[in-house]
Amino acid sequence: AQMALEQDYEQQREYDTRFHVLMESTRDAFIFIAQGSGRVVEANTLAARLLGRDRNDLTGSAFAQEFDGRRKGEMMDALSAAAVAEGTTSVPAQTRKGGKNVHLYPILFRASGERMLLCRIDQNAGENAMSDALP
Amino acid sequence: AQMALEQDYEQQREYDTRFHVLMESTRDAFIFIAQGSGRVVEANTLAARLLGRDRNDLTGSAFAQEFDGRRKGEMMDALSAAAVAEGTTSVPAQTRKGGKNVHLYPILFRASGERMLLCRIDQNAGENAMSDALP
Repeated sequence: AQMALEQDYEQQREYDTRFHVLMESTRDAFIFIAQGSGRVVEANTLAARLLGRDRNDLTGSAFAQEFDGRRKGEMMDALSAAAVAEGTTSVPAQTRKGGKNVHLYPILFRASGERMLLCRIDQNAGENAMSDALP
Repeated sequence: AQMALEQDYEQQREYDTRFHVLMESTRDAFIFIAQGSGRVVEANTLAARLLGRDRNDLTGSAFAQEFDGRRKGEMMDALSAAAVAEGTTSVPAQTRKGGKNVHLYPILFRASGERMLLCRIDQNAGENAMSDALP
């Protein structure tokens, strides 16, 4: 049983490592949110940068607070509705810091009996002056 | 101890679920490869599609076999060298199925004492006739 337990820890650490390497390697901005509480479970550096926040400060904070003019319940309802809608549906929003116009693409899933949202955050095309400037 | 064990299983399953949701949600093609054996540990659907393979068949197969003109040792050496090089370095390759020109962007890390590569696969710009066609 001790052996099995140690193997479990090893396996868990391996998944943990793979998960974090993947989070930081994808070129998409991603945030995991607990659906019940509306709080951020995990965010990658790209998502934190888009929201003008430190990645570690973001963990545990209310996701809706990062956007202008959306109350917590309203934001979570909009995300949940978009997640279960047919086709690819997004929620438009404006970041509180920096006032960037973004679209949120939520995916709803269940982990350890708790509903969770994985939210991709896309900055609207043409918002970034750098990538918009043509030679 | 039984409680702790159950909590470990729960935690592991949760990471497992999050990992797979993330793998299938990113818009990048990703493959995890065991550095020692050169075999595919995990691939997402986008990566499998780029390689013209079924995702499940890909798991456990030799990564180098998916490309033309690269022997296994040579491919793993090239990926490892690119992973430790300064700046963003890629390995050019041509897929065996479909003959697509791609660039491989490897990241080297250690999980459970084993070295692993996470490889992003980008299809070369202009290769896809659909996205290349201007109105």
